[in-house]
Amino acid sequence: MKQYTVTVIGLGLIGGSMAVDLKRRGFAREVIGVEADPVNAAAAEKIGLVDRVVPYGDCLAGADVVILAVPVGEAVKMLPDILDRLASEASSGSCEESSGAGLCRKTVIDVCSVKAALVKAAGGHPLRGRYVSTHPMAGTEYSGPWAAISGMFDGKACVICDSGESDRDALETVEKLYDVLNMRTIRMEAANHDMHAAYVSHISHVTSFALALTVLKQERSDRHIFDLASGGFSSTVRLAKSNSDMWVPILSQNRDNILDVIDTYMDEMKAFRDAIAAGDEARIRELIGEANRIRRIIK
Amino acid sequence: MKQYTVTVIGLGLIGGSMAVDLKRRGFAREVIGVEADPVNAAAAEKIGLVDRVVPYGDCLAGADVVILAVPVGEAVKMLPDILDRLASEASSGSCEESSGAGLCRKTVIDVCSVKAALVKAAGGHPLRGRYVSTHPMAGTEYSGPWAAISGMFDGKACVICDSGESDRDALETVEKLYDVLNMRTIRMEAANHDMHAAYVSHISHVTSFALALTVLKQERSDRHIFDLASGGFSSTVRLAKSNSDMWVPILSQNRDNILDVIDTYMDEMKAFRDAIAAGDEARIRELIGEANRIRRIIK
Repeated sequence: MKQYTVTVIGLGLIGGSMAVDLKRRGFAREVIGVEADPVNAAAAEKIGLVDRVVPYGDCLAGADVVILAVPVGEAVKMLPDILDRLASEASSGSCEESSGAGLCRKTVIDVCSVKAALVKAAGGHPLRGRYVSTHPMAGTEYSGPWAAISGMFDGKACVICDSGESDRDALETVEKLYDVLNMRTIRMEAANHDMHAAYVSHISHVTSFALALTVLKQERSDRHIFDLASGGFSSTVRLAKSNSDMWVPILSQNRDNILDVIDTYMDEMKAFRDAIAAGDEARIRELIGEANRIRRIIK
Repeated sequence: MKQYTVTVIGLGLIGGSMAVDLKRRGFAREVIGVEADPVNAAAAEKIGLVDRVVPYGDCLAGADVVILAVPVGEAVKMLPDILDRLASEASSGSCEESSGAGLCRKTVIDVCSVKAALVKAAGGHPLRGRYVSTHPMAGTEYSGPWAAISGMFDGKACVICDSGESDRDALETVEKLYDVLNMRTIRMEAANHDMHAAYVSHISHVTSFALALTVLKQERSDRHIFDLASGGFSSTVRLAKSNSDMWVPILSQNRDNILDVIDTYMDEMKAFRDAIAAGDEARIRELIGEANRIRRIIK
């Protein structure tokens, strides 16, 4: 297998977990890290997520593949800058090491869970073709380099957005990368992805946050809740541990889709509330019966 | 260890899982089952959850401990009937086998997740002291005898309600029973229990049902959601597989507490909606930060 030098910008849960398996499974001959937070950078080196850490300004040096794994708000600002740096490197001839022809053949991907804003940020750039917009749909409720784990992506789906805008060889590299991570790739328009992500991922976080707030509000006057928290409650509220650095920009960047889903969700909650308030057991049974159809989807 | 003959009425997830471990761990010399549904009764015998199945009319025959493990709506009706049967057995002298003195020393417990209605149903009965109101807080989203599993209660909490109304020896038997199931017992007033259960268990089911309905509504026009469902979504929506036979009566019997919690929860959801709609990132960050305090409770 051809081996690549991979630079990962952002050594948190996602970037760190990719770094580990890309190296371990032989896709990367070397993994270089870029991390703005000095504590996280030192931890990532110490844990061995990356071979070495370099400043952001050196993020392209020697790299074949650059993975942008920072929160979406920062990624939107960084992506055009990285493409600009790529362009100036190409025009100065300094990326010959990977192209051998003065042409830049480096590949840049992002791994954010909101895609339209990123595709827009790269839109019209002379090197747009070198960028592939991806969303590996995996994670845990933990964050930081110490949360990175091997195998996190195995068997999960990765969405590749607006692939028609990317160069064929860049797409091939990215397909190979996700194949090494054992992910199924699905192609989709960015706008379509963002709507789906609101339904199958973003809303779950909002409902978990709200559930945690509900219980914590009660807890101020009573500690029993802590003794009693059951397994069902734990799994429902688990995502409420998720990091605000990641989730504030997601909720902000995917605002319109998320508001639509919240509104539908609030209607469903109100249907339950009305049926319970009315003591209408037949209606409650009907609502639960409909919800039970989720059994055919979720294992 | 003294061994008991245990009769379990209702051979579903909870009753079946108790039957298995009480026998396996030597608390029960024999486990007798009572199950109204003939398919479930046959399955419970075939799987070996119980030694034999008897008609409801024989539920007291030979039993030292009777566990009422049917949905709360039925349990509320059955409990006074069982105490009446106990009283007539005691007056006829036919329960001497366990008391040896014409006095009835059999113990009746229920395991429902709503307690005030049951305590009320038994209130004032001449044999009220033989009844212990318990809620072993464990379960899965599956139901029926085939869902029963060994070890389900290990390390979890069991609430014993209004214990002052129960005879001391009945309480001792019940403490021993839950000790064998490796549960921590917590004593609490029934009304207090029902309020806490609404917060740490019942609301999670309502929010999961509503989340499932939200996504399923969308799915009618698009199958992508099924390809994309992530681990976070799965854990949040898991409880939406729960059975309506169990949950309709819970939501109905614990109506007032659940409505209170739903209202608090809807306020929290609205706070998120408003902050997202306003693009107020500082406020979203504040809400998530508060919700993150759940980390100190939930592993």
